[in-house]
Amino acid sequence: MRILGIDPGSRATGYGVVEEQHGRFRFVSCGVIKTQSRDSLPTRLQEIYKGLCQVIASHRPDEAAVEDVFVSVNPRSALKLGQARGAAIIAAMSNGLPVYEYSAKQVKLGVVGYGQAGKEQVQHMISVLLQLATAPSSDAADALAVAVCHANRRDR
Amino acid sequence: MRILGIDPGSRATGYGVVEEQHGRFRFVSCGVIKTQSRDSLPTRLQEIYKGLCQVIASHRPDEAAVEDVFVSVNPRSALKLGQARGAAIIAAMSNGLPVYEYSAKQVKLGVVGYGQAGKEQVQHMISVLLQLATAPSSDAADALAVAVCHANRRDR
Repeated sequence: MRILGIDPGSRATGYGVVEEQHGRFRFVSCGVIKTQSRDSLPTRLQEIYKGLCQVIASHRPDEAAVEDVFVSVNPRSALKLGQARGAAIIAAMSNGLPVYEYSAKQVKLGVVGYGQAGKEQVQHMISVLLQLATAPSSDAADALAVAVCHANRRDR
Repeated sequence: MRILGIDPGSRATGYGVVEEQHGRFRFVSCGVIKTQSRDSLPTRLQEIYKGLCQVIASHRPDEAAVEDVFVSVNPRSALKLGQARGAAIIAAMSNGLPVYEYSAKQVKLGVVGYGQAGKEQVQHMISVLLQLATAPSSDAADALAVAVCHANRRDR
């Protein structure tokens, strides 16, 4: 079972692909799709969409998991984030992947064992769990974390 | 030149297709894609995306215009709206349509000639401009209005 985790954002969208078999995880790929602030919003959304379509074509995940957004931000930021999230979810759905949502707290609990864990703790635990030589960037680590969280939940 | 206007929303997404030739408008189609609140967010976004893909396949517009969102809403509403908007923009972009954005004020100015016009005024003016026998629903009228606004701007 291969899972694509996505951490959407209008400037940087993290992705991570993880393979799970009998409770063991294998790292497949991760990265960040960056968009240019000088480009129009439709162009930036299309870059997120196309970038994720390429990741799906290359690594053929079976399911996708997206972090549910923490909404303490202002309306303008929430709108931008929502648009990026909509583009990311459509990239998964239009490639036939069922999409599951997890709150940031669920992801942190599932990966670090502590719902209030910081970004560095998530990066560290993901590196340990997936036996990575170097810690991935924060956006990629968050994407791998939601993929791992989903894999853990699926097994129950 | 055929233009697809879109008025995105998480519950109801209005669409309207208008043909323009030498400054004259012809109504092609309009309607509303409704989603069920009992469905998951990814399912609802996919319905918006698929619905618009069907409209594009049926009516083959050349360009798309989307109303820019008025962000006086709370962050949770802005996030929902953003997600619907992201799905709608990707539907147009992934079918090769360039997407243009207009503020609500620009649309009202372009159609009613008054930036603070109410919903009923937009419905009325759209019915007159496109010689419709009955006024379209508010969501469909807003979508037709952004299409007409874009057609007017293109000509200049």
